[in-house]
Amino acid sequence: MALSEIYSTSLSLLTDLYQLTMAYGYWKQGMAEREAVFHLYFRKHPFGGGYTVAAGLEHAVEYLQALKFSDNDLAYLSNLKGSQGQPLFEQEFIDYLGQMEFSCDVDAVPEGTVVFPSEPLVRVRGPLLQAQLVETPLLTIINFETLIATKAARIKEAAKGDTVIEFGMRRAQGIDGALSAARAAYIGGADATSNLLAGQLYDIPVRGTHAHSWVQAFETEEDAFEAYGEAFPKDSVFLVDTYNTLEGVKRAISVAQKLQPKGFVFGGIRLDSGDLTYLSQQARQLLDEAGFHDTSIVASNDLDEHLITHLKQEGAKINVWGVGTKMITAYDQPALGGVYKLAAIKDGEWEYKIKLSEQLAKTSNPGILQVRRYYNQERYLADMIYNELEPLPNTPQIVDPLDVTRRKTVEEGAKHKELLVPVFQKGQSIYTLPDLPSIKAHTKTEISRLHESIRRYMNPHSYPAGLEGNLHQFKLDMILKLKGKSDK
Amino acid sequence: MALSEIYSTSLSLLTDLYQLTMAYGYWKQGMAEREAVFHLYFRKHPFGGGYTVAAGLEHAVEYLQALKFSDNDLAYLSNLKGSQGQPLFEQEFIDYLGQMEFSCDVDAVPEGTVVFPSEPLVRVRGPLLQAQLVETPLLTIINFETLIATKAARIKEAAKGDTVIEFGMRRAQGIDGALSAARAAYIGGADATSNLLAGQLYDIPVRGTHAHSWVQAFETEEDAFEAYGEAFPKDSVFLVDTYNTLEGVKRAISVAQKLQPKGFVFGGIRLDSGDLTYLSQQARQLLDEAGFHDTSIVASNDLDEHLITHLKQEGAKINVWGVGTKMITAYDQPALGGVYKLAAIKDGEWEYKIKLSEQLAKTSNPGILQVRRYYNQERYLADMIYNELEPLPNTPQIVDPLDVTRRKTVEEGAKHKELLVPVFQKGQSIYTLPDLPSIKAHTKTEISRLHESIRRYMNPHSYPAGLEGNLHQFKLDMILKLKGKSDK
Repeated sequence: MALSEIYSTSLSLLTDLYQLTMAYGYWKQGMAEREAVFHLYFRKHPFGGGYTVAAGLEHAVEYLQALKFSDNDLAYLSNLKGSQGQPLFEQEFIDYLGQMEFSCDVDAVPEGTVVFPSEPLVRVRGPLLQAQLVETPLLTIINFETLIATKAARIKEAAKGDTVIEFGMRRAQGIDGALSAARAAYIGGADATSNLLAGQLYDIPVRGTHAHSWVQAFETEEDAFEAYGEAFPKDSVFLVDTYNTLEGVKRAISVAQKLQPKGFVFGGIRLDSGDLTYLSQQARQLLDEAGFHDTSIVASNDLDEHLITHLKQEGAKINVWGVGTKMITAYDQPALGGVYKLAAIKDGEWEYKIKLSEQLAKTSNPGILQVRRYYNQERYLADMIYNELEPLPNTPQIVDPLDVTRRKTVEEGAKHKELLVPVFQKGQSIYTLPDLPSIKAHTKTEISRLHESIRRYMNPHSYPAGLEGNLHQFKLDMILKLKGKSDK
Repeated sequence: MALSEIYSTSLSLLTDLYQLTMAYGYWKQGMAEREAVFHLYFRKHPFGGGYTVAAGLEHAVEYLQALKFSDNDLAYLSNLKGSQGQPLFEQEFIDYLGQMEFSCDVDAVPEGTVVFPSEPLVRVRGPLLQAQLVETPLLTIINFETLIATKAARIKEAAKGDTVIEFGMRRAQGIDGALSAARAAYIGGADATSNLLAGQLYDIPVRGTHAHSWVQAFETEEDAFEAYGEAFPKDSVFLVDTYNTLEGVKRAISVAQKLQPKGFVFGGIRLDSGDLTYLSQQARQLLDEAGFHDTSIVASNDLDEHLITHLKQEGAKINVWGVGTKMITAYDQPALGGVYKLAAIKDGEWEYKIKLSEQLAKTSNPGILQVRRYYNQERYLADMIYNELEPLPNTPQIVDPLDVTRRKTVEEGAKHKELLVPVFQKGQSIYTLPDLPSIKAHTKTEISRLHESIRRYMNPHSYPAGLEGNLHQFKLDMILKLKGKSDK
């Protein structure tokens, strides 16, 4: 379901005030419609990982499609006051906004694609005022969904083929923190969600067990299991740790045995506390002894990729992982630091722009950038960020942004493709949004094409991704020139 | 603006699947309408702090007011399939849900109130099915907004009277992660937000400066400042670190001097990188030398309560703090671990319920709980959680949950009030939602009534809050009895 079907309010004010003050300034200077190029990118993989899974484009597209100031929005802006009580904006500017139609070109990396630092995930080219205005919502949407998709991919990797269920709604950061994260987690690797509304809106498979309160509501644990088993003869997962976990497992088994003649299928048990390794091993033994070899052991309780790996190494007998807080909030790094930077502006000719930083690697890249990915039959080899406005050398070099003396030339015969695809042309959406299962499948393929040393979630190898040599040199020259000018 | 005006979709499926499977189970067992009591509470203050600011009640009330399964919701539930392709729910149950009207009593702590571990923030009493169903959305809403309000309160404390602006939208966890956090941050202590939609929806003051891209879009920094100053002669804050910060300050000053004859008021400069202490001191000196004593120095860049305190101790000359990522996501603890536990169920008589845990302090509390707060003229003295169904002793004792040998009797003459107030009676809302300025003012008063040792944001003293002695003894007896039963 599209954003515009979920929200009844216009989302056109979903941006920072300063986007509107700058818009007003550009408009007053007659610069509002000067053509400009911005790139949205991040500088560092989240979670200390070796790759990032792009997500959020669908919501970004829907936001842009609906971008149109409503009368209500305009009235709000008209009423904004400055510090001395004066109107912040002239009425003529408000009228301009009211007539504004989004008319930018947008190119973006499809959801589920693996991406690397400095690579534009979204490129916006069009009137300066508009391209600036959309900065904040694009960042909010892409930063968050990319973060969660990446977290989920790491957790799914750690689970090594086991089922992973997203259980985090109760700890999510607000309603959309739960909804769009459930979608992003599904893209990244979660197999299902407990969030019914996400199931309904995005057609994600939903899964669940029962709570402790279910057991507490009955006189005995046996009564509780039996009642649940009768309600769901084919789909019962009994939560066994309300009182004493291993006693709970035994009671679950005896209830399953009692209900079996009526066609009951013993789906699983869930462990939610205690020593998950020991308890799962004991539970597996009890289940196996009773002949319930196919009964799953589901675990939950503050799981993330690190704990799952640790439990597996210890020999835990868990085959379904219910992951909550740590996935839905990306607990160990709850924000991706994506930025949105001006890279070129046209005043007759294109002028390139960079934002200086104390660190070379953090200085933004000038141009109208595209990313070329080189690959062979088995895997992705290297990515090269280049300026579409400049001719490419016959044998381009890729300069490592963290060590500019490391330069790579891609092996002969490597194929390549461009990562940014057209999404809007002059404000018209020309991109067919893939359905969610396709995006999920794309993610899986993408990750499978990375060498396992890059997929390692701690201390991974670094995938070769950098600037095309001429672009790198041009940027260096620009920095030196700007520093000289600025220090005068 | 109410949730139902923001969302066009029904939010009745905004819950975990297992709430519906349990609902179905209760319905099948004829237990759906058995009266039950649940409490929503947290076990530990976030961020290692000494107090927590309750928030989210308004959204919780709006969610409950709108709780009604739509035809669309019912169709979705009808179509849910079990693992063998069979419908998960019987049609008769779907019809039951379709006719269901929310009919619980809800009592809650007003937004902005300071609260302590184990104290119910929300108490729901009513038909078991309904009271269970609302668990997840109440947790999502209250956990998140309480977390952010508390974070903002800590940051405002650290700022010691300086202005704090919430700047975090671009790093927020989704659209509502930005919106409801902007509101919660305002409740907790932020003075304004950069988020225009939050400004529009909740009538929060909006503030902003300009971005680096504004400066980059012009030939020179001077041109950029001059253009901005002309657009906002009374409200300009110049971002000075695009090229070289102190050169930027000098340029801002010369532009301000140039524009002054036209009535320009030099609002401020913003620092967004580098050594904020050194730069702010130098900037202050430059501004003062030029006679701009009232010009603010705004700082941003990964600020939180710790960094603000550190900068102040170092003598930074900053008087407006733009706080982004660390506040909007509560970066150092992005989830409050609030829980929702069954505490009593009526089957003829009330039966008390607890959820055992390996730690006594984590075991839930039985009864229909209320919180009594004792206070004198100056400050809050102690909180006592007690069971409304049992008579209170004349001189009640408060038992420290972390050391049950510590018992406190409140000083004679102390006044007291009950924290939970009626919000819904038999499903009808009977609570007048306070307006946002009142909630914000309430927070400020609440925090001012805590001893400063409790307000200290690192290693605070612990405010005396615990169980009334009889309730404590009753709980102990219940635990021992349950453990005996469970180990049999």
